Amino acid sequence: MPSELEIAMESLITVFHRYAKDGRLNRAELRKLMENELSNFLRSQKDPAAVDKIMKDLDANGDNQVDFEEFVSLVVGLSIACEQCYAAQMKQRSFRNWKIPDWERKRITPPPNSP
Amino acid sequence: MPSELEIAMESLITVFHRYAKDGRLNRAELRKLMENELSNFLRSQKDPAAVDKIMKDLDANGDNQVDFEEFVSLVVGLSIACEQCYAAQMKQRSFRNWKIPDWERKRITPPPNSP
Repeated sequence: MPSELEIAMESLITVFHRYAKDGRLNRAELRKLMENELSNFLRSQKDPAAVDKIMKDLDANGDNQVDFEEFVSLVVGLSIACEQCYAAQMKQRSFRNWKIPDWERKRITPPPNSP
Repeated sequence: MPSELEIAMESLITVFHRYAKDGRLNRAELRKLMENELSNFLRSQKDPAAVDKIMKDLDANGDNQVDFEEFVSLVVGLSIACEQCYAAQMKQRSFRNWKIPDWERKRITPPPNSP
């Protein structure tokens, strides 16, 4: 049975080939992929020309097509951004759950009869 | 409901953090992750020092830890290698299903009484 990571890697490949009919994404195919698979990200982009700009950024070799390697660089960029949010949230959560250790509580608690 | 691609990106993050207890993978955690999540790949490596070599390759900043960005570069490398196999298989499959068009069959079929 494949692992969760193997399933994720397989998904990257099958999602790409679901839209890249001849093995590379043209502009219309990239738009369709982003509308269906990255709709939350696309909605967060205020710029209506976002897909065109992403296409230009991804298309490293300038052939107006996005191959799998170029597509993966988009996935990597988004995953790294998401992971930074995830790590920050985890830190915040562990800070909320953090309790003052007993030795520190004793040190900072004022004596009962202090003003 | 998240898309297949969003689920895959989430998996990259959660799998990494399942093993990276302090936010980065040390050598033992990387080994555990690879044994559990990339066991097929690890079995294909004949070299018993494969994990150590991968650790050295991934650890771009030389701190003996693998952070999420460094981990993702392993996933990308493996995904690109898998995609090349996938694309080659798809080509071979479509070649097998390819039929000689009628006009070409007529052209190359010898006349019935030919020697």
